[in-house]
Amino acid sequence: MIRQQSETDRQFILENMFVAVMDNIFLLVLVTLLSVVQNVFFALKVEKECTGQHSKHHSAAFERLSCANRNCMDTYPTFLAVLWCAGICLSQAPAAFAGIIYLVVRQKYFVGYLGQTCQSTPGFLFGKRILFFLSLMCVVGIINHLMLSYGGSDYKEYIQTITKAASTLLLLP
Amino acid sequence: MIRQQSETDRQFILENMFVAVMDNIFLLVLVTLLSVVQNVFFALKVEKECTGQHSKHHSAAFERLSCANRNCMDTYPTFLAVLWCAGICLSQAPAAFAGIIYLVVRQKYFVGYLGQTCQSTPGFLFGKRILFFLSLMCVVGIINHLMLSYGGSDYKEYIQTITKAASTLLLLP
Amino acid sequence: MIRQQSETDRQFILENMFVAVMDNIFLLVLVTLLSVVQNVFFALKVEKECTGQHSKHHSAAFERLSCANRNCMDTYPTFLAVLWCAGICLSQAPAAFAGIIYLVVRQKYFVGYLGQTCQSTPGFLFGKRILFFLSLMCVVGIINHLMLSYGGSDYKEYIQTITKAASTLLLLP
Repeated sequence: MIRQQSETDRQFILENMFVAVMDNIFLLVLVTLLSVVQNVFFALKVEKECTGQHSKHHSAAFERLSCANRNCMDTYPTFLAVLWCAGICLSQAPAAFAGIIYLVVRQKYFVGYLGQTCQSTPGFLFGKRILFFLSLMCVVGIINHLMLSYGGSDYKEYIQTITKAASTLLLLP
Repeated sequence: MIRQQSETDRQFILENMFVAVMDNIFLLVLVTLLSVVQNVFFALKVEKECTGQHSKHHSAAFERLSCANRNCMDTYPTFLAVLWCAGICLSQAPAAFAGIIYLVVRQKYFVGYLGQTCQSTPGFLFGKRILFFLSLMCVVGIINHLMLSYGGSDYKEYIQTITKAASTLLLLP
Repeated sequence: MIRQQSETDRQFILENMFVAVMDNIFLLVLVTLLSVVQNVFFALKVEKECTGQHSKHHSAAFERLSCANRNCMDTYPTFLAVLWCAGICLSQAPAAFAGIIYLVVRQKYFVGYLGQTCQSTPGFLFGKRILFFLSLMCVVGIINHLMLSYGGSDYKEYIQTITKAASTLLLLP
């Protein structure tokens, strides 16, 4: 019977699908956009420092800014990957929240970068705790999916509540 | 009633789902593949320059090529992120079109890189206008989704038409 | 008829959709997580080398480790992009398998990096064969989708079987 109404059904399914997909990713898209704005801000800072000090190339300030920018860019794909995996596998709200905290930490890192040599004093890898939290969310999401597939038990709602509560712990300094 | 036919329905939904998903991303996948080919092209250029000038390391030409490559690679995750977000949130055709223009701009940037110092003359950040256009598409897509969820009004078709028209403006030099 | 049951149907479709999405990406998420763990391992190695040799900055060992890390990070977004595109367009199992082999190759590359100058001896671009295989999977997936849309013939099952068999060829040294 359902196959006889195939065309309208298909339309109906697709409409619902896109609304559902957007419902589950729009916070992630927002955080991604914020991170892109931050990237552009970093790049413009480096460019300004570079063109401003045209007389004596590779000054200390430029070195440091460029280094901070490179460290931020090196970890950026890693951050995006875990952010989206965590958001899709488990729940988008805690993932987006952790993502925003990561962006704040990155801003602090970039502004406060004062190391003499590359990757030295303020830590080469920042936001380890947040990356760990997001990775953990992915793992929990996958385990829950496997349990649902093979065991038939679904703890997703409990896990999502726990995750939301746990994500506030990231606010601790 | 629908739940009684659960198994065949589920199959039917899934089949339609995958066709629908592919319908909405295959242009993005194509652009991503093109960008990957370009990345490999850049990397091979740098490698050739590097091994070709084995006698005097870190020659000026190698420095410059390596620098152009690094600038391209630094913005690559940012580009991919906004490309896919714009394509998923709003409409894939204009996003893929903007992506292809970005690749052309990047090719020009890489070939014409003649700056003496790293990140200096030809601009550290290229394709700002395209990144801005793609980000705008994301924002519009999210706003439309929120209006659809809370207000019930759906302007997606109008917006998609406008976006398609606007994307041709990127062709202006 | 189906529209009268709209609310429960929608719930039913969504539930199935999420299970289906997770079914089709959980291996990719696992490989992504593994690659993130490896990235963090690389970054910690570089950081340890950097802080350990605080007296004489930019020692040869640090240069080399930092260079290997940068080469790995430069190709990381490219790898993630083709991995996910191949997994979504065609089939996740061979894509995830190729991804794991890529991670093994990368580990070997990082550990065995002994080049004197940046990007020299052990090859600037590693895992070319795997990237090529994943790109090919994307292309085949898109061609199959277009044939399905316009021609009506679906060879996806045959292609998936062939791909699975072909992916074992990556094990050849």
